[in-house]
Parts: sequence; structure tokens; C-alpha cells
Amino acid sequence: MLHSEELHNNPKLHIFLPLFYTLWMDSVLTPTEISEMHKLINKQDWISSTEKEYLLSKLNPAEGPNSKELKSWKKKIKSIDLDSTHSLSQIGESLVKQENPNISIEEKIHLDFQEAEKALGLLSKEAGFTFKSGHQTITTKHREDQSFATEKMTGILDGKQANLIKKVKAVISDPTFAYRDYDSLLDQREQVLQWCQALADQGFGAWAFPEYAKGKDDMEGYFTIMETLSYHDLSMVIKFGVQFGLWGMSVFFLGSEKHHQKYLKDIGSLELPGCFAMTETGHGSNVRGLETTATYDHETKTFSIHTPNPDARKEYIGNAALHGQMATVFAKLIIDGEDYGVNAFVVPLRSEDGKLVKGVRIEDCGRKMGLNGVDNGVIYFDNVVIPKEDMLDKFAFVNEQGEFESPISSDNRRFFTMLGTLVGGRIGIPRSALAASKTGLTIAIRHAEKRKQFGPEGGEEVPILNYRLHQRRLMPPLATSYALHFALRYLTQRFLDRKEEEAQEIEALAAGLKAYTTWFTTATLQECREACGGKGYLSENRIDALKNDTDVYTTFEGDNVVLMQLVAKNRLTEFRQEFGHMNMFTIFNYITAQAKTSIVEKNPITVRNTDSKHLLDFDFHLNAFVYREKAILSSAAQRLKKHIDEGMDSFDATNVAQHHLQNVGQAYIERVILEQFQKTVNETTDESCKMALTQLCQLYALYTLEKNRGWYLEQGYMEGVKTKAIRKEVNQLCWEVRKNASALINAFDIPESCIAAPIAMKTE
Amino acid sequence: MLHSEELHNNPKLHIFLPLFYTLWMDSVLTPTEISEMHKLINKQDWISSTEKEYLLSKLNPAEGPNSKELKSWKKKIKSIDLDSTHSLSQIGESLVKQENPNISIEEKIHLDFQEAEKALGLLSKEAGFTFKSGHQTITTKHREDQSFATEKMTGILDGKQANLIKKVKAVISDPTFAYRDYDSLLDQREQVLQWCQALADQGFGAWAFPEYAKGKDDMEGYFTIMETLSYHDLSMVIKFGVQFGLWGMSVFFLGSEKHHQKYLKDIGSLELPGCFAMTETGHGSNVRGLETTATYDHETKTFSIHTPNPDARKEYIGNAALHGQMATVFAKLIIDGEDYGVNAFVVPLRSEDGKLVKGVRIEDCGRKMGLNGVDNGVIYFDNVVIPKEDMLDKFAFVNEQGEFESPISSDNRRFFTMLGTLVGGRIGIPRSALAASKTGLTIAIRHAEKRKQFGPEGGEEVPILNYRLHQRRLMPPLATSYALHFALRYLTQRFLDRKEEEAQEIEALAAGLKAYTTWFTTATLQECREACGGKGYLSENRIDALKNDTDVYTTFEGDNVVLMQLVAKNRLTEFRQEFGHMNMFTIFNYITAQAKTSIVEKNPITVRNTDSKHLLDFDFHLNAFVYREKAILSSAAQRLKKHIDEGMDSFDATNVAQHHLQNVGQAYIERVILEQFQKTVNETTDESCKMALTQLCQLYALYTLEKNRGWYLEQGYMEGVKTKAIRKEVNQLCWEVRKNASALINAFDIPESCIAAPIAMKTE
Repeated sequence: MLHSEELHNNPKLHIFLPLFYTLWMDSVLTPTEISEMHKLINKQDWISSTEKEYLLSKLNPAEGPNSKELKSWKKKIKSIDLDSTHSLSQIGESLVKQENPNISIEEKIHLDFQEAEKALGLLSKEAGFTFKSGHQTITTKHREDQSFATEKMTGILDGKQANLIKKVKAVISDPTFAYRDYDSLLDQREQVLQWCQALADQGFGAWAFPEYAKGKDDMEGYFTIMETLSYHDLSMVIKFGVQFGLWGMSVFFLGSEKHHQKYLKDIGSLELPGCFAMTETGHGSNVRGLETTATYDHETKTFSIHTPNPDARKEYIGNAALHGQMATVFAKLIIDGEDYGVNAFVVPLRSEDGKLVKGVRIEDCGRKMGLNGVDNGVIYFDNVVIPKEDMLDKFAFVNEQGEFESPISSDNRRFFTMLGTLVGGRIGIPRSALAASKTGLTIAIRHAEKRKQFGPEGGEEVPILNYRLHQRRLMPPLATSYALHFALRYLTQRFLDRKEEEAQEIEALAAGLKAYTTWFTTATLQECREACGGKGYLSENRIDALKNDTDVYTTFEGDNVVLMQLVAKNRLTEFRQEFGHMNMFTIFNYITAQAKTSIVEKNPITVRNTDSKHLLDFDFHLNAFVYREKAILSSAAQRLKKHIDEGMDSFDATNVAQHHLQNVGQAYIERVILEQFQKTVNETTDESCKMALTQLCQLYALYTLEKNRGWYLEQGYMEGVKTKAIRKEVNQLCWEVRKNASALINAFDIPESCIAAPIAMKTE
Repeated sequence: MLHSEELHNNPKLHIFLPLFYTLWMDSVLTPTEISEMHKLINKQDWISSTEKEYLLSKLNPAEGPNSKELKSWKKKIKSIDLDSTHSLSQIGESLVKQENPNISIEEKIHLDFQEAEKALGLLSKEAGFTFKSGHQTITTKHREDQSFATEKMTGILDGKQANLIKKVKAVISDPTFAYRDYDSLLDQREQVLQWCQALADQGFGAWAFPEYAKGKDDMEGYFTIMETLSYHDLSMVIKFGVQFGLWGMSVFFLGSEKHHQKYLKDIGSLELPGCFAMTETGHGSNVRGLETTATYDHETKTFSIHTPNPDARKEYIGNAALHGQMATVFAKLIIDGEDYGVNAFVVPLRSEDGKLVKGVRIEDCGRKMGLNGVDNGVIYFDNVVIPKEDMLDKFAFVNEQGEFESPISSDNRRFFTMLGTLVGGRIGIPRSALAASKTGLTIAIRHAEKRKQFGPEGGEEVPILNYRLHQRRLMPPLATSYALHFALRYLTQRFLDRKEEEAQEIEALAAGLKAYTTWFTTATLQECREACGGKGYLSENRIDALKNDTDVYTTFEGDNVVLMQLVAKNRLTEFRQEFGHMNMFTIFNYITAQAKTSIVEKNPITVRNTDSKHLLDFDFHLNAFVYREKAILSSAAQRLKKHIDEGMDSFDATNVAQHHLQNVGQAYIERVILEQFQKTVNETTDESCKMALTQLCQLYALYTLEKNRGWYLEQGYMEGVKTKAIRKEVNQLCWEVRKNASALINAFDIPESCIAAPIAMKTE
């Protein structure tokens, strides 16, 4: 085409070149494209009929230009100065003028071209970018733009535990804690044991214990240690938790002074490794159904611990397969053939040199999806005899006459009171889970800042964190991880300050936050894995270990689904108590009336309010969360009542309502999380941190509202215009938060040696 | 209490015993409970004031009965015949009559008790269950109840591939294919290689190749083989796919006869292990940006393959770390300094004895989250020279004059045409993923049938599959796995029968189904893991391997997020073509008008229709899916146009719309899946299978509508009453499908030796 006679004779024809190139480069010519081009060409009265024929021949889909020809067109076009050109016909005009500066292109021709380009679906103003380079767009230019001082934010996160956190970080950053590959399961378990020993040597194991056991009497510090250790290997954290948390705390909380004196010091120093033997093969969630027996013999003043059938063997018991020398064993106490319910006993498993005690049989659980540094085992007891003193006797004991005594008469209630004292596990686990999420997010966000892929025509590739979907993957979890940080701090404080009458509320709060946080962790680490693509799949980048080690967090310390049902039942009980004598219908009418009030009186405008100021308003958020919590709770109560009134068995009614009850638990937990986050924001004094946290809090709130929008729409609490506006606002907040993303993860201040992923190295 | 003087003097007081026991067993006494009991007692004019005082003293929260007392009450109550009693006062009456058969209890007393029990929040008719056993409820009684013949369903699933499927299953059930533990990465990789060799020996590797290469010329069979193998070890499947699918098919589809003759036979027999070297460290999704070069030298008629910088090294290449002897390498072809875009070349890596070819450097990718039986590696080329004939020349070649020639002039278009021929990978992967989901569901459902936990008061524990939330975890994925089975069969058929003009549509379909299915697999296996609790975490139960091996399926063969954007762009293009000349606004008005029509004319009743017959109707389902697909597509088109008209760069506009575009892709894929499922159901002749499939199809449809209900409510396509009714219908379908659950997974007919999980053994 370029060298043809026609072009030589009429250089003005060069105006077609950029358009022809663009069409051929894009794709084969479709019939529509051909006809539009015919229209354009036939309109031009300055072209002779021979020339027209020539041009049209170049639009024959069967005989397009060959590669070389296409390349020479492009070269020709790129050779001219493109800076001042914007449309394809302007570029064409430059080409024409290059041939002959005296030829001018009439405005009408440009208009014809613009029309044709539009009909062809080309974006005139952009078409020229193909020939340019360095094209910048909003997406290209967006970048990190930190708005606060990182160390101030770290200070807010760490609070009064800052010094202890620093101390723990210093320990796990020591070269002896460097990650390594393992030759075998045994190798890994020994390494983890050694790390735990090193932590015990630092005094971390005994931290919560009394001073005579070399402890600091500091439960809050113990949780801080668990959480901070979780930036490092999670097998180590779980082994640590089994030894000092489960084994140690069970002796501490279920035993009396004599047990404390006898055991705590050796537990805290790891001289006496032990287990927490509650779960049985046949009974995991339904622990009340445990079948192991502890039969009292008043003659010898001993208990005989026994596994009556294979389903009653203790299963998944941490520290059992290799290292445990004793265990807190939960078993049904039998006196004179009478069953006094589940109680706890200290039972020896191995001598110091590792030999199994007579009557104890242990199997190794073998490889697991993760946490392979923890030696889980199965334990069978064949009439293992222990002295009377080794019953952990805070809540029940056998008196001198060989009779059962307990301040709590009901077996059930006693059992749940015992369990209640162990609620600490349901605080430690979510805090550990959250730390793992923070590490995952640190890796994924750093990678997304550095990784570039795709870009505008004629421009550079763009960091993938600038893509809206990538932001949607990582920014809401980032906001949620801040939200959960403050919620878990609140839970910890409530637990530490608890009064007896608050026990059940706090247990429900712990159960709910445990479930919510660990599910969040599973989902977040999955996003992080995918967001890092193939790099995320390589073990060296650590998402593998983070994901697989935490996967069981949704199961242990209580299966999440079961926990959420517990939370819901607790809420229903509170609900009943709050409303005292009112019967369910009265209550429901009351709640409905309240709800109606809030909709009818407050909301004819609100349900459709898409004003950004309103959408970002803390009060709007919290009201919506509270409304959801109350409305779901009261409708669940009404639903249950209706089924039961209609003659349904309450067990069946609860089953029918399970899905509803799950939402009761979730709505409650989400309200608590938001409330605590808002409270923290309001109390923040550093203005720039406050602004950054405000944005995160808004993102958490709106993202959660968006997630639950089906419900709000069903209720008429919002209309479609509003939920759509919320979605847009979430997108915008993600875009804004992205500027602080790196700073926000750096504020977690995770030791670089713990992050360790090559794709997340700060200095690459 | 029992032995007190008062009771002895007035045996009628025994009527209080069951109620007192129930209150004390339940919990401590709350003030409300105490006051209600006071009310009840004070109403009884047959009780003397001393007796009243005595009874009230037993309600002192500080001095409740002790354990032994409580137990003796219970024993006393259980000693009477409880069968004919229903309320606590009736049980009390029996106790009274046991003391003195002549005493009668007036109706008024029963009424007082009933009132009190209600005020106390006790369910009178159930309170007695505490003392009974064998209490049955709806939830207890629900069980497996198969409604179709398993082998008939298997026949429907397998279709005309049944014989080949049987053959493959027979091979992988052979003892040589038994799963085993590995001592090391090397050990695992060698085992997987051996398995692949055994499969090649069966002729499976060459199945799709021409007969002269010992193949069957049967592409459909090749997909069937990939899918069926996926019931076994997935490292084996991926290694198999790398060798015969990626390496073999790239030679087959990108090369010409001379390459086929030279290589296919040895590839099919695994005598020539090879790689598919496309992805580079710097370019994964954006393959168009690959930087490896193939520079042509006309003097020697050779290409020099070179890695110009570290980011251009080939990464994650399967078969590279250990076994690959050659590779299809994608590189930019350079002739005389001119870049002719990405083309494919056959490049040697190792000699037969494993020695690296000069200029080739390979690093091992090391451990991965899963698929550790595949030896992924990183490849660097340092000016590796290959002869001119080793360019795979179906779409481009260098002619005798040393010039580039291609039937496709545009570099881009040529590249995408080349990629298009490799779309088979995007069919094989989702079919493999689905097989893994089926195995996971088989394990989780069998476990849920056998595992019992919790139960009604006084009744046995219940299989966890009877719990509504557990059904919600597993039944919708079960339905979806059937849905996807038929959708992937449809995709395969479309691919096999494709005409040139359908190529892009089929590519989009494959991309979309690949993304949808692999995300489904990740989510489903996660549910399966959690649904199996601690057992699911043990490696022996295989969910570990299934989950970790398939995790990267969402990334390889195209990152899912990127693929969904591609699908959306394809839909927008089709949309533009369908509407020809109309400009976007016209189109949008047209669509909106259509949509309005369907809402206004058809739906004033429909939007609120909660009739079960309507909700289960296939037409309702498909209309709703189609409406969503069209409306989202046209609104995405309008949105993009609006941004661009307002002056936004199209790259930015696409970025802003990413989330919207993701939904475009999803809505399209969901419509296709439902359409194909309904079609299959309608074509099913066996009536009992048809009914079972109908239920699954309804569940898939309604579950998906429920998931998307936020959107339907926003659009006004449904009102809240209807989406709530859908939720209820989903719960009910889960409850119904549960009866067939075991049969439906047995119909997958996965070899027991492949399932292998102890918790899923058929005969336990």
C-alpha cells in the first residue's frame, strides 16, 4: 500500500493509513467494519474512482496486508511526531504533511473520520496510543502515599503491651529461630520442641503462673506472647499453647493449691511436658458425652482411668505422640456405680526417659494438613490407677468418706463451669489466627506493590495493587484485620476483668470471635495465596505453611459452626432475660414496633439516601449493625416459638432454625467488632492515624453492610439505590486505602525474619 | 427433700419433685424463676403453711440440693413408668400415686403447673424427656432413602465414555497405584514418573494423537482419561497433563506434519519427556509481554534462544527440574532486528542421560503447597542454538529467503490464535478439579452419615448429616458438582465440534468454566475439610492432598480473575456485534425497555410469588438467570460507555468496572450451567433418575438465586418475601436431597482404593 502508485500520486490518501493499521491490527475485518469503511471512503469526493477502488481492495478480508507490510505501516506512523496528535485522522494528517507539507486536510474530512471511528467502535482519542509510549492513565499513576507515621500506628496497635511485644519479637528474630527445612516429621517435632524450650527458658511459658512457679502472674501478657509468637512458626505456637495454655492452665484453673505447688513450676519450665486430653474419637463437639471413666476405689483411695471402648480413646491430643509425660484427662467420675459426670484428673503417660506408663497405649496421629511440628496422638487407658489427690478438685472432689462433693450440684452445670474457666483458649486461638492473617496480608500486599502486569495501550505495566479487583481482594481483609485487632483486645480485657455474672456473656463473645476470626483467617489466607499467583504456591513464600497450619483453627477449641450455635443460644437466653416476664409474642410485637419506628420515622429518606457523607457516617453504620442484630435475634426467637407452639420438638425446631441462628451469632459479633473499632478510632489522639483508622473503620462497616445487603434489602432497611451506592463507596475506599496499604502492614511491625517470603522482602 | 417429714406427711407434695429437679438441673435459680415458683406454691390451697415454708426453703439459691440429693431425685423419677406421662406435673402425679395410689391430683393443679412451666420458659411436653430414653424426633428419624438405581445414574454421568472410564479406573485401582508415603521429594517425583510411565504403557498418553504415533485420534477420550485419573493422585494427573497435554499438544497443534512425525510417538510413549515453557517470572497472566528471544540467523539457518534478563527466565515449568529433555519454548521471534511477536520453538534441555544441554540452566522450584510429585523448575537460556526446522510453524515460519511469513499478519492476533488452539488445557483442568471435588464430597458425605453428635434430650445422638447447617455445607456443592459435570461435558463437545467462527465463544466458555469450577473446587474442599472436623485435618483422610494439590488450579492455565475479565470482554464484544450499528445508548435503551417489559408486564405478581410450585419451576429459574445475564451485561456496557464519554481512558474505565465485569462473566457462566443441567434432566429417560436430578437442578438454581439475591432485590426482580421463600425452599431441598446423598456420591463410582480415606470406608 505504502509504495503504491496511488499513494504516490495522491499523498493525501495517507490519511487512511492509521485507521487501516488499527483495523487490521485489531482483528480480522468483520462485515460491519467493511461496510463502515466503504461508507467513509465513498463519502470522500476528493478521491478518484481508481483510488477508491484501490482503497477498497485493501479491505478485502481474504487479502489483508502481510506481517511485513503491517510492520512497515507502523514504523512509518511511529516515525512522525505524535505528541500533538490525538485522533487517528490527526495522525493521518501528519503523515500527509510529511509527504507534502502543502496539502491541507479539511475539517469535514476529520469529521467524517470521527463518525466512522465511532461507528467502528474505536475510541478516537485513544487509538493513537498504540503508536506512542509512556502513556499515563489514572490507574498507572496511582501509587503508595502514606498519610501517617508508621511507628505511631504500631504504638496504637501494641498499646501498653509494647515492651513485652518487643521482647518476644527480639527472641523469635534470633538466628536460632530461623526457619529451616526438615528431613522428617521427627526432625520437625524436635526442632519445635527445642524452640518451645528456648521460649520456656525466657520465662514465657510460666508468664501467667504465680511467682512461686517462676511466673509473672500476668495472664494478659501470656495472650500477648501467644499472639506475638504467631508471627513465627505456628507449630511452635500450638505446642507452646498445649504445654503452657491447655496443660498448664487446666492444672491452674481446675486444680487447687496442692496441684499448683506440685506441678506449675515444672510445667512452666517445660521440665514436665504434658497434654490436655479431652476430645475422644466419638465425642468432639459434644464433649458432655465423653465416655472415658475414672472409677473411685475407696479402699485404696485411688481412681482407675479407663477407655471402655475404641470410640472413647482420646484423639488428636497434642504432645501425646512423643513428649508428654502427664495429661489432664477428662473422664466420667464413677463412685459406687453412680456416674457423677465429667471431671478432670492428672494422669501420668510416660516416665522422664520416655517409657510409657503401664496401661497407657499411644498411637501417633501421623501426618496432618499442617502443624506437623506438633506430635498429636491417640491415647488408650487400660485401668491406669492414680491417687485420689490427682483429681483436679477445684469444682468437685471425693471427701474423706469417699463421697462426692461439689459446690455445684448439677453435673451439667459443673461441667460447663469447668469448661468456662478454660475459655482462654478461645482467646489465644483467634489472636494467633489474626497474627497469621497479618503475615499473609503483609506478603500479599508487598508482592502486589512490586508485581506489575498489563497496562494501558502504549503505557507501562501497572502494579497489580492498582487493579480494583486486587484491591477488593486485599483491602477489606486489611481493614477487617485492624477491626479484629481491637475487638480481640476488648475481648481479652473483658476476660481479664470478668465478674461471675458476666461469665456466660464473655464465653459467648469468645466463642463468637473465635469462630469469626478463624473463618476470616482461612478466607484471607486463601485470597493471599491466589493474589500471589504461582509465587503464592511456592512453599518458600510461606503462605503454604500459614494456610495449612491455621486451617484447623476453625475446628479446634470448638468447631466454628457449633460455636456459632452456642453464641446464638446465649443471645436468645439473654434476650429472654432482658424481657423478663413478657411472653415471646409480646416481645416480638415490641421489637417489631421498635423496628417499625426506626424504619417509618427515621427512614423514608434514609432508605434511599446515597449521599456520601451519610454513607461514611459512623452512626449510620452502627445503627444499621445494631438494627440487624436485634431484628435477627427477635425473628429467630419468634420463629422458634412458632415451631414449638405448632407442636414441633424443640430439638427439631432448633435444627430448622440453624441457619437463622448462625446469622444471630454473626450479627452480634459484627456489631461488637464495629462498636469497638469506632470506639478505638474516637479515642485516637494522633490526627493522621485517626484519619487512616477512620477510613479502615468505614471500609469494614460498608464492606460488611455490602456483604449483608440481601438481608437489608429484604427488610426494607435499604433500597437498591442505596446498596448500589454502598458498593461504589466500598470500591472508592479500597482505592483510597490502597495508598496506605504498605504503611498499614508495616505498622504490624512483623519481624522480617518471620515474614521470610522472598516475594515480600523489603529490599528487593 | 425426699426423706423429709413434710413429704412423708403429705405425699402429694411429690408433684413438685420433677419441676424442682428440672430447675436445679438446668441452672442456678434466677430471681424470675424463684418468683414464679413462689407464685405457684402460694396458689396451692392444699398445702399447709409449714409445707409451703419447707418448699420455699428448697428454692434458696444459696442452699440448693447437693449432687447426691439431685441424683436420688432423678433416680426416684426414673423408677416410675414414664411412657404415659407427658408433662412434669403428670410425672409428678405418678410419683404421688406411687406413694399413695389413693391420692388424686385435681385438674386445677395441673393447670397451675402448666402456667408456671410456661412462665418459667419450660416446654411442658418436652420436660419429661430428661427422664426417658429413646426419644425420637423428626431430626432423629431422618435418614438415607435412595430413590433411584445407582448404576443407572452412573450410566447417565458416564454416557458414551463409560467403557473408557472403566478401563482407566481398572488401571488406577491396580495395587501398583496404591498411595504411599514418601521419604523425600525425590522419592515422590520418581513414583509419579513411574505411574505416568505405566499410564503411557497403557496407551493413555498418546490417546489424542494420530494412529502413526500409536494414538487413537480421540481427543474426547483424552479428556475422559484426564478426568478419570483425577480420582487418583493429582501430581500424577498434572505430570501426565504436562507431558501429553501441554508438551504433546503444543507440538501437535502448533507444529506441522514434520514435527508430528518426528516427536509425537516418543512423547506419547514418554520416551521423550518434555515441558511447556511459556510463563516467565515477569510475565504470567500478561503472556503477550514475554521477553525470551529467538533470534534468527539466516547464515546458519538457526535460532538462538535467549533469556535477556532474570525476569525473563521461564518459571514454574513442570517436568523441568528433573525429567524434561525438550521444551516448547515461547519466545519473541527477532529477524534482522525486527520483532515478530511471540512464537513457539522446540528446544532441547537435557540429553537422554539427564545432562543439561550447553547454555541451559535449570533451578528447582522446590517445595510447593501441593503437587510435589511434579518437578517444577526455572529455566534460563544462554544463546541456545536450534535449527530452523524446530520452530513450530503452523501459524508462522521463516521462509527460504529468511523472511517471516504467516497467514495471520497481526502479531497479536497470531499469538491469540496460537493460544486458542491450546484451550484444551482449560477443559482438562476444570474436569480434573471437578473429579477432586467429587472425591472430597464422597469422603465428607460418608463421614457425615456415620458420624453422630448431639441429639434430643433423652434420645440418641444424630448423624451430623441430619443437621440443617451440615446439609447446607454439603448438599449445594453436591448439586453443583452434578451441574458442572454436565456443563463440562457440553463444553468438551462444543470444543470437539468447533467451527472457526465459534472459536472465541468457546474460548470464553472454557475460560469461564475453568474459573468457576476451580473456585468451586477450592471452596468445596474447604467445606469438606471443616465438615470432617479434626478427622478432615489428618492426612490419611486425603482432604489435605486434594485441597493442596488443587489449590493452584485457580492460578494455572490462566489466573481466574484475569480469565473472568476475559470472559466479560468477550461477552461485551458479542454484545456489540449482536446489536450491530446501534450505538451503546440505543442498545441500552432497548435492553432496558426489554427488561422493563419483563418486569412490568410479567411480574407485578411474580416478584412476590412465593408459591412452592412456582419457586421450583425450571422456567422461573432459567428466566431469572437469563435476565441477570442480560441486565448485567448491558449495564456494564452502559457504565463503560459513560466513563469513556466523560473522558476517562478506556484502561481506567475497565479498571473501574472490574468488579462489575467479574459479575458479567459469572452470570454468563451460571446461565450456561443451568441451561445444560435442565437440558440433561429433560433428556433423561429413567424416571427415578430424572426425579433425583430434577431436585438437584432445582437446588443448584435456587441456591444460586439465593447467593445472588442482593442483586435481584436491588433490581426489583424479586421482593423480600420471595427471596425469603427461596431460602426456605433451599433448606427444604437440602433436607430432601440428603436422603439421596450417599447414593448420589456412590453414583460417581470412584474406586474405593482411590478414595482411601479411613473415615470414608464403605464397610466400617
